[in-house]
Amino acid sequence: MATNPETRPVASIERWERYAAASEGLTEYWYPAMPSAKLGRKLVHHRLLGQDLVFMRHDGRAHALLDRCPHRQIPLSVGVVEFPGHITCVYHGWTFDVTTGNLTAALTDGPNSPILGKVCVRRFPVEERLGLIWVWMGEGEPVPVEEDIPDELLRANARVYTLIRQVDGDWRYAAENGYDESHGKMLHRSSLWVYFKRVAAWNDTEIVRSDDKKWLLRFQHSVIAEDDYPGLGRWPRHNFFQRRQKTIAQGSNQHAVSIRLPAILRVVQPGRANWTHYEWYTPTEKGKYQYLVMAAAWNTGWKRFTWWLRYWSYIVWFHHYNFNNQDLDVVPLMPESHPERFFRPDVSITAWRRLVENDARKPGPKRATAAAE
Amino acid sequence: MATNPETRPVASIERWERYAAASEGLTEYWYPAMPSAKLGRKLVHHRLLGQDLVFMRHDGRAHALLDRCPHRQIPLSVGVVEFPGHITCVYHGWTFDVTTGNLTAALTDGPNSPILGKVCVRRFPVEERLGLIWVWMGEGEPVPVEEDIPDELLRANARVYTLIRQVDGDWRYAAENGYDESHGKMLHRSSLWVYFKRVAAWNDTEIVRSDDKKWLLRFQHSVIAEDDYPGLGRWPRHNFFQRRQKTIAQGSNQHAVSIRLPAILRVVQPGRANWTHYEWYTPTEKGKYQYLVMAAAWNTGWKRFTWWLRYWSYIVWFHHYNFNNQDLDVVPLMPESHPERFFRPDVSITAWRRLVENDARKPGPKRATAAAE
Amino acid sequence: MATNPETRPVASIERWERYAAASEGLTEYWYPAMPSAKLGRKLVHHRLLGQDLVFMRHDGRAHALLDRCPHRQIPLSVGVVEFPGHITCVYHGWTFDVTTGNLTAALTDGPNSPILGKVCVRRFPVEERLGLIWVWMGEGEPVPVEEDIPDELLRANARVYTLIRQVDGDWRYAAENGYDESHGKMLHRSSLWVYFKRVAAWNDTEIVRSDDKKWLLRFQHSVIAEDDYPGLGRWPRHNFFQRRQKTIAQGSNQHAVSIRLPAILRVVQPGRANWTHYEWYTPTEKGKYQYLVMAAAWNTGWKRFTWWLRYWSYIVWFHHYNFNNQDLDVVPLMPESHPERFFRPDVSITAWRRLVENDARKPGPKRATAAAE
Repeated sequence: MATNPETRPVASIERWERYAAASEGLTEYWYPAMPSAKLGRKLVHHRLLGQDLVFMRHDGRAHALLDRCPHRQIPLSVGVVEFPGHITCVYHGWTFDVTTGNLTAALTDGPNSPILGKVCVRRFPVEERLGLIWVWMGEGEPVPVEEDIPDELLRANARVYTLIRQVDGDWRYAAENGYDESHGKMLHRSSLWVYFKRVAAWNDTEIVRSDDKKWLLRFQHSVIAEDDYPGLGRWPRHNFFQRRQKTIAQGSNQHAVSIRLPAILRVVQPGRANWTHYEWYTPTEKGKYQYLVMAAAWNTGWKRFTWWLRYWSYIVWFHHYNFNNQDLDVVPLMPESHPERFFRPDVSITAWRRLVENDARKPGPKRATAAAE
Repeated sequence: MATNPETRPVASIERWERYAAASEGLTEYWYPAMPSAKLGRKLVHHRLLGQDLVFMRHDGRAHALLDRCPHRQIPLSVGVVEFPGHITCVYHGWTFDVTTGNLTAALTDGPNSPILGKVCVRRFPVEERLGLIWVWMGEGEPVPVEEDIPDELLRANARVYTLIRQVDGDWRYAAENGYDESHGKMLHRSSLWVYFKRVAAWNDTEIVRSDDKKWLLRFQHSVIAEDDYPGLGRWPRHNFFQRRQKTIAQGSNQHAVSIRLPAILRVVQPGRANWTHYEWYTPTEKGKYQYLVMAAAWNTGWKRFTWWLRYWSYIVWFHHYNFNNQDLDVVPLMPESHPERFFRPDVSITAWRRLVENDARKPGPKRATAAAE
Repeated sequence: MATNPETRPVASIERWERYAAASEGLTEYWYPAMPSAKLGRKLVHHRLLGQDLVFMRHDGRAHALLDRCPHRQIPLSVGVVEFPGHITCVYHGWTFDVTTGNLTAALTDGPNSPILGKVCVRRFPVEERLGLIWVWMGEGEPVPVEEDIPDELLRANARVYTLIRQVDGDWRYAAENGYDESHGKMLHRSSLWVYFKRVAAWNDTEIVRSDDKKWLLRFQHSVIAEDDYPGLGRWPRHNFFQRRQKTIAQGSNQHAVSIRLPAILRVVQPGRANWTHYEWYTPTEKGKYQYLVMAAAWNTGWKRFTWWLRYWSYIVWFHHYNFNNQDLDVVPLMPESHPERFFRPDVSITAWRRLVENDARKPGPKRATAAAE
């Protein structure tokens, strides 16, 4: 599957047409919007894929509508709940059933307002899994939400910790940075997370499709701990305590890093660490994205407590903040559409781009409620 | 005059051509710029209808010029008054007669500078009425300023209080919001101003032209205090003390709200309140406007004192701030040019748009001083 | 050489084509970037003529590269120095020889990375003179740096003080302001620098080319201290202590002010002041420029100490700050491309524009390293 990207001349993201067009994301997928706990009795506004949405909880279930009253485009999220299960626009009292998006009343025009039956607002299917609210951002009929969440996370003994940040940068460069083979060997070398670990100099990379076709797996071959660079010298230099370590652990987690659509990264932690790191890159609008990181382990009882202890004592600080902040720093430094000059390790990036280009779901026929709007 | 706006499909302001083009205002009118008291010995810059103006008081009279020296476009308002009745540009000493706009001297080129007689800066006619400075923003010959101020305000016993704010939003949506029939029944329901009043649910609306053709008057028929909405219930709910009130006062102020060109709102206060509220929406530049609210009463002697007391004890706080701030909050929420879906009460808005479209003064022949510039 | 600019109608900078196109500067020149002392052990980013540059000192010499890694356009200035004389990109370890711009290693792809020999980053020639780092911003072969620095500043006994500010405004209007004949007679009249001096009202101006063709010299004829302006009166008015001064010193520094390419101003201080003021206007990007002012005197030994004392006791405060701040205030007030109406003293500005139009160096053939990029 590997090609040698650097044999090509200077290029840019424009070479992948669908991918280049998706600056505000791939529509036909379920995306994590916010923690379930964030949606209580108040209306909540949230922006995803360039769309303003208003979320409301009714009878225990979460619902989402487009956050624009069709009358004069006032956000419904500044509206009020005059009747259970309905959002009333603060401006003129247009009242929408949050479960259907239909206009139930235009209060200030009386019960027989002629506008009734002629207007609705777009509804977005919503589900709750893993303590998160998920939204279907597609125009076509939604697939089951389980199709867009990695299977292992839906197991009964999965215990996940989630951290969400709204950050600057292009979601595609964030995904590429996550799956990128080589940046870990340079950018993250200075993070506290790997301070006592030995980070290799370089390796051969192979990208393989998973058996279920959903994931791209990344294999590392011939991992070289350190090497001699002509005219420069030996690299990397190691801390004094690292010199005693003779060899580098390799091969044990050959396909530790994988990626899938719409933009989900999975990093199985090496050796006996026994937990897995996930990332979701969800565009909110052009040049901004929601960065969700998740630590997952599968356990019960006493082990669940030690997992809780491990996450809050160091994983959240050293990995989700210190380590991942390096990614958040570098992604917005890449200009929107920039000339690129790929080298051998970028095979991971080009494979990911091809995956989006060829496999991303295409918008289906418009849903009924959307069409009537 | 009423048509049913909601029978039309989704539209936008673009349907009214002149109105849509007037994002920076209608030029051939007098506009209130600032309180007379603001213009003392210093030059004052003020922006109106997308133009920068410099104001100067000379021999007790207010004057206004375009705030740009024709030489290199430096603002004259950062200039100095080297000679009475003249503004001298701070950069090279070009000196303009504030009563004519003519270049009287180019100081740093000597008394015989060849530029003399070849340059002038646009002058804007200025008047003072009601304690305000009024500017003619037209290209044609100005009409008497009295034509652009409601007659009753010019009576000798009129006593007005004025509050001016520079705010975000489109002046047209501000005017529409002011004259809009139905937003008061929803948006303002939560204001302190109507806390002890009963606000009706809905009514029939009729728009009629005033006898002098200047105003659009708004009549309310069949005012319904509260009603049953199928599937939702009774609305509005009332405070416990409001339940005792059986009927709603109606008909006594049938045409309480009226609007006229360029964008003046008049709200005769109901019953024995005995004062009238006015609003002027003056664009300063695209997406910003000057919001002037005015409370007027007609009285003398002791009654003039009780009017002063009433204004400063509650009208300014509960109406000009708390109540009108709700308008200032909602107007900028309407996107610049947005799809609209009108309903029955919007007959007030469409009538106003037609008034502008058909009746707004058209630019006349250029004035002499403007042409020479 | 003088023409009467005010006989022409309203114009703008667009009349001078090359000049109008040079909103980000004239490329084929040496520009002062920063004090030599600012470049120590750390990488330094600096923007000049719309380009991002990274500066590095190696073996005592200053070097500059384009501040973009060709791989993904990450700034090299956030990179690290893993090896002496090389900048390593923080993202994937691409390592560039700072003296050539060549890629020496792609660390995370091993010593035999196929990308080697195929990539380089643009190098900018750098020199150090007068305690400043100078950069050749041209595409053609650089001229000797001495060609772009006034000769007298390179003499052994020259002692210069430099102040650099990054400011808003167009570098061309800054240069015009500097060389402008008449603004000093109005704008600077209020500065502390001339408080005890008599500033003339006006004079005749003549622009002459220097013998070495590099400079435009400005001659003042018939300097009039004060004059009578019809309808206005006598101008300027003087402080009480200035009345005793009968005549104004004139002719002794007839060509005190001169300008040359790319945009260097020279003001020989009058009489026995015995020092010269210089200004460099270097665009950093459109609408912003680097404003470098320099005070130079030629002396040794004890006189060098008194010069130090004079500069730090009053010249820096009264001239480089108070006086020159008036220029910094007025330049950004001129809109980007504005209608102009020239008058007689503007002969200095039109002569300067013609100098740029006719004499500015043209881009030569691309240099080898730039072409390979």
